Amino acid sequence: MLERTRIVLVNTSHPGNIGSAARAMKTMGLSELYLVAPLEFPHPKALEMASGADDIVNQAIIVETLDEAIHDCSLVIGTSARSRTIPWPLVAPREAAAKIKQEAANAQTAIVFGREQSGLSNEELQRCHLHVQIPANPEYSSLNLSAAVQVIAYELRVASLDESSLPQEEWDYRLATADEMEKFFNHLQEVMIEIDFLKMNAPRKLMTRLRRLFLRTRPDVMEMNILRGLLSAVQEKK
Amino acid sequence: MLERTRIVLVNTSHPGNIGSAARAMKTMGLSELYLVAPLEFPHPKALEMASGADDIVNQAIIVETLDEAIHDCSLVIGTSARSRTIPWPLVAPREAAAKIKQEAANAQTAIVFGREQSGLSNEELQRCHLHVQIPANPEYSSLNLSAAVQVIAYELRVASLDESSLPQEEWDYRLATADEMEKFFNHLQEVMIEIDFLKMNAPRKLMTRLRRLFLRTRPDVMEMNILRGLLSAVQEKK
Repeated sequence: MLERTRIVLVNTSHPGNIGSAARAMKTMGLSELYLVAPLEFPHPKALEMASGADDIVNQAIIVETLDEAIHDCSLVIGTSARSRTIPWPLVAPREAAAKIKQEAANAQTAIVFGREQSGLSNEELQRCHLHVQIPANPEYSSLNLSAAVQVIAYELRVASLDESSLPQEEWDYRLATADEMEKFFNHLQEVMIEIDFLKMNAPRKLMTRLRRLFLRTRPDVMEMNILRGLLSAVQEKK
Repeated sequence: MLERTRIVLVNTSHPGNIGSAARAMKTMGLSELYLVAPLEFPHPKALEMASGADDIVNQAIIVETLDEAIHDCSLVIGTSARSRTIPWPLVAPREAAAKIKQEAANAQTAIVFGREQSGLSNEELQRCHLHVQIPANPEYSSLNLSAAVQVIAYELRVASLDESSLPQEEWDYRLATADEMEKFFNHLQEVMIEIDFLKMNAPRKLMTRLRRLFLRTRPDVMEMNILRGLLSAVQEKK
């Protein structure tokens, strides 16, 4: 999916922005960059801002028109900050990523980003099947170009991953079983009685709160061993 | 929720990164910025990179230790690029935003970002309730600081919005009804017969394909009027 998704930057003014957009792409596993009539490119500033993503900058394809950049794409999504006089199908970034995922199984897709100051023209937006809008602060919606690429590329990457590839906790010990928990609670109560912390005439509320605390925590067996060891140590030293 | 979520940057080396992080925050509606022992700050480069978000830079609170930055927070989430020797509860950005949303109804929360080169130390990460990891390209995971802030802030904003605040299509005309569609298909077929495009001996497949096309498109009533007008014009001119 990420291999079939092209990023197209139209009329970029600052070569540094091309570099940081390439970096944003690469962090999310995108690699195909088309530049439509960039103002200054190639340029050392682009490579500088790309950091380790200079391969993407060097492989970028420069074309003169948007048509050339999207000619082989079956789904073209244009980024748009404002609503248009003629409404166009509009999606949020997450939905855009879902559409791309659906489409990119069989066909080439593109996401088009406009100029730093003025975005895409109405004519350019009308070459797109869909528009995508990042839900920014209405009082300050000025994401810079690479920030916008980062957000969209992030949603594409998340969509491309199956659940099991998302950051997953890897725990080193298994969680304690209900049986082990009960043994611990018994031990805890025993110790609390021995040290006169738990008065047998009103024991319930305190134990209830401690049960709730430790059950919520879901200790693993190593933590359980530590807690049990602590209780035993209290018993030996008292 | 966004008002109760603080962004904490630890030991930032480049003041420009503080400015672009502030910009990323403001585009997503976050405003509270804490700086733990920044290397150079205040600095003109921070204001320059902040673009219109200089209010956030100017109101940033500078403290000496991470403890001071999070002392009043009930939920602290640390950003972490790599897994640790002692596993810690780890979530993806979307889940982190959901946790913050749950918590921020009643209490202050913080998301902590580390140094540009080395991130957060193990000691700092152990001050956090949870770790969050952006699911980056394993072969190139170097998001710059403001890009990481942008992604997390974006997820926070999306979580803060109810469905109705996400970018929504606003269409100008209602969609055509089934009845209107059938009238159109009849009109279309009539015209195709009149212009000898549709041979009555094998009419079905062609009409089926045209039905599928226009039903999939779901034209609105204005578009329907245009199509019907076009058909009538064909009939008048032939």
